[in-house]
Amino acid sequence: MKFGRTALMRRSWLASLWLLASVAQAQDVADIPDAVRENVELLIQGGLDDTVGYAFVRDLTTEVGPRLAGSEAEERARSWSTQELAELGFQNIRVEPFPIPYWSRRVDRASIVSPAPQDMVITALGGSTSTPPGGVEAEVIRFENMNELRAASSDVVSNKIVFIDEKMTRTQDGSGYGMAVRKRRNCALTTSQKGGAACLIRSVGTQQRRFAHTGMMFRSAVVGDGPAAAVSPPDADQLTRLLEKGPVKVRLEVEVETQPEAPSGNVIAEVVGRERPEEIVLIGCHLDSWDLGTGAVDDGAGCGIVVGAAQLIMSLDEAPRRTVRVVLYGAEEVGLLGGYAYAERHADEMDNHILAAESDFGADKIWRFETRFGEGALPYARAIQRMLEPLGISPSHNLASGGPDISMLPRLGVPVVTPRQNGWDYFDLHHTPDDTFDKIDRDKLNQNIAAYAAFAYLAAEMDWDFRKLTP
Amino acid sequence: MKFGRTALMRRSWLASLWLLASVAQAQDVADIPDAVRENVELLIQGGLDDTVGYAFVRDLTTEVGPRLAGSEAEERARSWSTQELAELGFQNIRVEPFPIPYWSRRVDRASIVSPAPQDMVITALGGSTSTPPGGVEAEVIRFENMNELRAASSDVVSNKIVFIDEKMTRTQDGSGYGMAVRKRRNCALTTSQKGGAACLIRSVGTQQRRFAHTGMMFRSAVVGDGPAAAVSPPDADQLTRLLEKGPVKVRLEVEVETQPEAPSGNVIAEVVGRERPEEIVLIGCHLDSWDLGTGAVDDGAGCGIVVGAAQLIMSLDEAPRRTVRVVLYGAEEVGLLGGYAYAERHADEMDNHILAAESDFGADKIWRFETRFGEGALPYARAIQRMLEPLGISPSHNLASGGPDISMLPRLGVPVVTPRQNGWDYFDLHHTPDDTFDKIDRDKLNQNIAAYAAFAYLAAEMDWDFRKLTP
Repeated sequence: MKFGRTALMRRSWLASLWLLASVAQAQDVADIPDAVRENVELLIQGGLDDTVGYAFVRDLTTEVGPRLAGSEAEERARSWSTQELAELGFQNIRVEPFPIPYWSRRVDRASIVSPAPQDMVITALGGSTSTPPGGVEAEVIRFENMNELRAASSDVVSNKIVFIDEKMTRTQDGSGYGMAVRKRRNCALTTSQKGGAACLIRSVGTQQRRFAHTGMMFRSAVVGDGPAAAVSPPDADQLTRLLEKGPVKVRLEVEVETQPEAPSGNVIAEVVGRERPEEIVLIGCHLDSWDLGTGAVDDGAGCGIVVGAAQLIMSLDEAPRRTVRVVLYGAEEVGLLGGYAYAERHADEMDNHILAAESDFGADKIWRFETRFGEGALPYARAIQRMLEPLGISPSHNLASGGPDISMLPRLGVPVVTPRQNGWDYFDLHHTPDDTFDKIDRDKLNQNIAAYAAFAYLAAEMDWDFRKLTP
Repeated sequence: MKFGRTALMRRSWLASLWLLASVAQAQDVADIPDAVRENVELLIQGGLDDTVGYAFVRDLTTEVGPRLAGSEAEERARSWSTQELAELGFQNIRVEPFPIPYWSRRVDRASIVSPAPQDMVITALGGSTSTPPGGVEAEVIRFENMNELRAASSDVVSNKIVFIDEKMTRTQDGSGYGMAVRKRRNCALTTSQKGGAACLIRSVGTQQRRFAHTGMMFRSAVVGDGPAAAVSPPDADQLTRLLEKGPVKVRLEVEVETQPEAPSGNVIAEVVGRERPEEIVLIGCHLDSWDLGTGAVDDGAGCGIVVGAAQLIMSLDEAPRRTVRVVLYGAEEVGLLGGYAYAERHADEMDNHILAAESDFGADKIWRFETRFGEGALPYARAIQRMLEPLGISPSHNLASGGPDISMLPRLGVPVVTPRQNGWDYFDLHHTPDDTFDKIDRDKLNQNIAAYAAFAYLAAEMDWDFRKLTP
């Protein structure tokens, strides 16, 4: 929500829903010819039966594995993807390279030193600095949340290891994340400002298993202001129980490698439009992943979904009028760097971006169709959603962000949609070692592929202007 | 089932059930006086409301944490327990020390070297040898199961890293474990006999998460015949997928510390019988744990159950006729060494062991009451089970093992019972880093405490002879 606080955004969610209901009567403006309807039905059936998308995420996570931004593995992922996309028959396959600052963990471990020596399950946060060799050993001071740390005086924080124990709320739409992630973003900075030795946070996640969730401290890959790590939920509980009994001393050791510049890149492939090839319907995902798991639900699944969907559109008798562009973004996890690179490089094409969507919320089913259209274009939102209804997808609000790597496009005038996946379990796996291929259910993935194929085709085939401002 | 293959054992399970049914008519031989019934009901209600057992496992896993056999932590667990038991008011509290060979991991890690470099989640198996410094790097050869490895010629195994991919079946009674554990016990030995470089097994467990399950290779803590480690299920899947595409090279690094002798011990506490203090009803658990988790379901829960139950019996107006002895065994995980030490030290008291049971199968509810009694004593089995029926506990067979640390007692003539817990989820956590306190449900734990208090009290109060051979 950082970008695009336009007049559209100020409209309340309820008002948007009301608008959606009212435009149901205006259905005729968004009439879809029978031939197009038949193609949509073909694409939906093809999506539900698809094997390409599932194979894409399976093979990406297996043959490449983890794909840390700026690493050799991310580079292998780009090579691997361009080859796969070529074999699938896509056009205009290319890599758009850009440099990023590089951060990688070498060592991250922690243990309780006293009163009850035991190892903890932790993971350094992206952007953490190294501790001095041998680590830092200090007494722990616990805070319920980030605000409590902010309110604390330097006297009580100085030379301590800060521990923020705030839990995350499980929701279907992922809305618990924004609140929970604040401690990850800001803990190291606030700690170092108050003279603390290091920061530990309860993992930003919803599971109660012995996994720690990594993630960036800041929206850039620049190394942060101190050592910072996330502890697994059971370890956070353990710390809290011990602290109830008396002082607890912890040792934290973090060693990181950083480079001012490393290569990343966006991989692009197209189904070129038969009438207006310069007009673009963009469907994206991100190719990089965190290093702990193999990046299956975050975001191999998204890549499987958009590649599977575009390949189905390609298999139709004729290409749609407009171009369907698949973008596999690089370096999303370290600050949406692929998204920014794309927006900058394609700045003067923005008027030709008819619609954009990024799939980056796991592999569970889509349950509602969020948009950010001009008000006059809301009948098109309703028309698309009606075609998706057989997939169990309901209408939603007009405040969509579109997805992280396209979150900067709405303020550049680009209409976006978020086909919202069920995120109930997403933060059980997100940024953990447990984000592996076996977590993906093919039937659910295929529901996504069907929906993406259907709406991307409609947007590329129909002569709709999603920016239309006057109803 | 290694011990006590007596005439009793040869009786089939079905025949035993039939016997249980037939003895229902012989109920009168096991009449329970009203005063005793009232005490049993008090104990059951007290168990369901108990706070002592839950606090015992919470504080043991928090204030001590992991308790590897022979380690300083296991010693702390003994000190901690004797102090807790004293505070609870138990009598005859003592430690019976015994020496054990010591094994501990220092380093255990593995990665896929080619074709797709990535770290794996593994854990060294107990008794693994160290690899040469820097680890072993070799091509992987996969086998479906232990028999396939046994049948393979040395030519194909030589200098390879063996990978046994056999899965474990999830069951309520834990019967999938015996089959699955064979590969853990024997892989290193068979691999080294065939000239292999190391052995990897798919973890002996039922979960599909990124946890590796440790465990002993042999029934003694002596260091084994080669480096051996378990890989997490998602990593086993990954290896299998990669092997379908071509050769896979893996690097395994294990560094262990061993000592020929380290201290362990059994912690004992009693509720001394008011009439026949020399006659013993033994309820046990094991105090040691693996090093990865904090030993909550394996077996802090068992200790909470038996301590909670015995303390309830202690709270009655008068002690039962016979002594209730609580034994917190040491060094179970490394070969039932506490169990053997106890059996040896108390060899000439075996006739006075009226009944024994060990709780070592997690913290879920008990669903049936297994016994190994003389045939003439089966009416007592039925009488006890009837008292437990309000807890949802049904009759079962007469082939109980009693639990690992007392599994050697039946062949010494000691009757045992296994109040069988629901083990459906047990092998999700067993021997993993995820075996932590938060996994324990207090209501389920309390059902166990109620059942243990009830049957231990009955056995200690009633004048029953569970060895009785003639019906």
